[in-house]
Amino acid sequence: MTYPLLGFDEKIAWRNQRNDVLTVGELLIDMISSDYGENHESSEYRKFFGGSPSNIAMNAKKLGIRPLVAASVGEDGFGKYLIERLREAGIDTDCVQSVDHSTSMVVVTKSTATPVPIFYRGADYRLEYTSKLEQALLQSKVVHFSCWPISLAPARQTIERLVETAREHGILVGFDPNYHPMIWQRGEEGTAYVKSMIGKTDIVKPSEDDSERLFGKDTPERQVEKFLELGAKLVVLTLGKDGAIASNGKETCVFDTFAAEVVDTTGAGDAFWSGFYAAAVKGYTIREALNLGFAVSAYKLKYTGAVADLPTLEAIKEMYGL
Amino acid sequence: MTYPLLGFDEKIAWRNQRNDVLTVGELLIDMISSDYGENHESSEYRKFFGGSPSNIAMNAKKLGIRPLVAASVGEDGFGKYLIERLREAGIDTDCVQSVDHSTSMVVVTKSTATPVPIFYRGADYRLEYTSKLEQALLQSKVVHFSCWPISLAPARQTIERLVETAREHGILVGFDPNYHPMIWQRGEEGTAYVKSMIGKTDIVKPSEDDSERLFGKDTPERQVEKFLELGAKLVVLTLGKDGAIASNGKETCVFDTFAAEVVDTTGAGDAFWSGFYAAAVKGYTIREALNLGFAVSAYKLKYTGAVADLPTLEAIKEMYGL
Repeated sequence: MTYPLLGFDEKIAWRNQRNDVLTVGELLIDMISSDYGENHESSEYRKFFGGSPSNIAMNAKKLGIRPLVAASVGEDGFGKYLIERLREAGIDTDCVQSVDHSTSMVVVTKSTATPVPIFYRGADYRLEYTSKLEQALLQSKVVHFSCWPISLAPARQTIERLVETAREHGILVGFDPNYHPMIWQRGEEGTAYVKSMIGKTDIVKPSEDDSERLFGKDTPERQVEKFLELGAKLVVLTLGKDGAIASNGKETCVFDTFAAEVVDTTGAGDAFWSGFYAAAVKGYTIREALNLGFAVSAYKLKYTGAVADLPTLEAIKEMYGL
Repeated sequence: MTYPLLGFDEKIAWRNQRNDVLTVGELLIDMISSDYGENHESSEYRKFFGGSPSNIAMNAKKLGIRPLVAASVGEDGFGKYLIERLREAGIDTDCVQSVDHSTSMVVVTKSTATPVPIFYRGADYRLEYTSKLEQALLQSKVVHFSCWPISLAPARQTIERLVETAREHGILVGFDPNYHPMIWQRGEEGTAYVKSMIGKTDIVKPSEDDSERLFGKDTPERQVEKFLELGAKLVVLTLGKDGAIASNGKETCVFDTFAAEVVDTTGAGDAFWSGFYAAAVKGYTIREALNLGFAVSAYKLKYTGAVADLPTLEAIKEMYGL
């Protein structure tokens, strides 16, 4: 009972569910330096709510749909902080598990050279498959995850069971194949596993860098082909300022970017996902949902930070003349 | 060839060695919040050089002896930062190992309630016993460590071998029994192991809290007895504003505090260790070295931060009329 081909001019026939999108995976602290003083004692950092799927949930809520976050955080101040941010936003935290490991964190130090993040993975990959999580999934229209939770056990097995259950019950599976060796288990060839996961998902949205890390350098068209060959039903390859290519294997569409002004690219991909899901859930066609996703992404690009203070999807639709 | 009883009015008969004190263990980032906004997005933190034995080395250098740091940091910006701070201070970093794990960090958020640190242990406990480390030990007068490296493998085995080698070669072993379940391996009873380690060391400096975590509540005199019974040659139990008690099992001395002004207690214990080692190495008697340790500690208490900008040992000696 997996999803059929996703036609560009079709709407997804959703079943009536209590939740719209269940995002599963990293809910963590982004600790970002305020200045370029990477080598000075006492240089300043600021903490932010973070984690790609959690940011998607935050955005989706603002755009007007019902997200649910499944993640695992530490029984510490950071964990409490993250849970409170979700509650403040009106997002159900029933599936946020608290575990006896430090809340995961990514430290990003602004640098005159390329800034390289430092990953502190404690609680995030301890996510367990529970009956509560299964119930949340069965009451959702979409389940979404990235490469983080599949990079380490036991979260990997949790995702595998969620995907299996989603496919059995006709729940749409969205996957961000943002593979990077730095988050992957030491000594394991991550690309093979990520590729095996692509075949079990409905929608993937790789960037050009993601594609290159998985398949090596190639033209955008051929990269899209490779994702389709692995079994993805809809591939959305983003090309930065050159827009995007999307294909369902039968039809391929090219999308220009809506971004006239780029202030900060952080979170642009998450903004796309949230716009796409919000539109698809609200009954727009795949083509319309993709356009609305790109519009939300363009809106976010005008602001600094991972999560912009988004208006409703309808306001963005009007803003971008869609 | 272990150390004989350390008489209070005796000087330690040091052999001629290239280094004075080899500190082994945690070299890490202290990430400390600037404000009490524990629950606000974007609240501010500052990064500092940290890790008790590394702070002792920094202090000891300022006091005028030759320390050497053995530790393991990540191949990342934080690791580079820590190594550069040591180099700047003129401390040899030959025994700082760089490993493929994130540099360890302790996050402390100021809180209106009790601030609870969050531990991010990556690189620190990956310290390996290498021939370079063994050579460094054999060229040192003292080796010092805390509970951090013995809390997790493989650093635990590294410390065990270092202690064994130190005892074989008449190198003084100083141990800070700062046991805390939060840094200990999950599911392991840490106190039994820490107690077994006390018997293999020459000098221990527990606080009252350390003693209580190891033995339960008791009078200071009886706590000192317990450390001696385990085999420590010299026990220095610090009592905060009430000074300290030191005993070698034959003779017990009470020390009043020199601290007239207490601004920040962070690093007071490390300041004691560095003052004690500096004085002992410079040829003062045990009693004089203890007094000079307490004087350095009192000096540090007047300043904020883990490491004060200490003058030389001679200047502190004069300042406190010793």
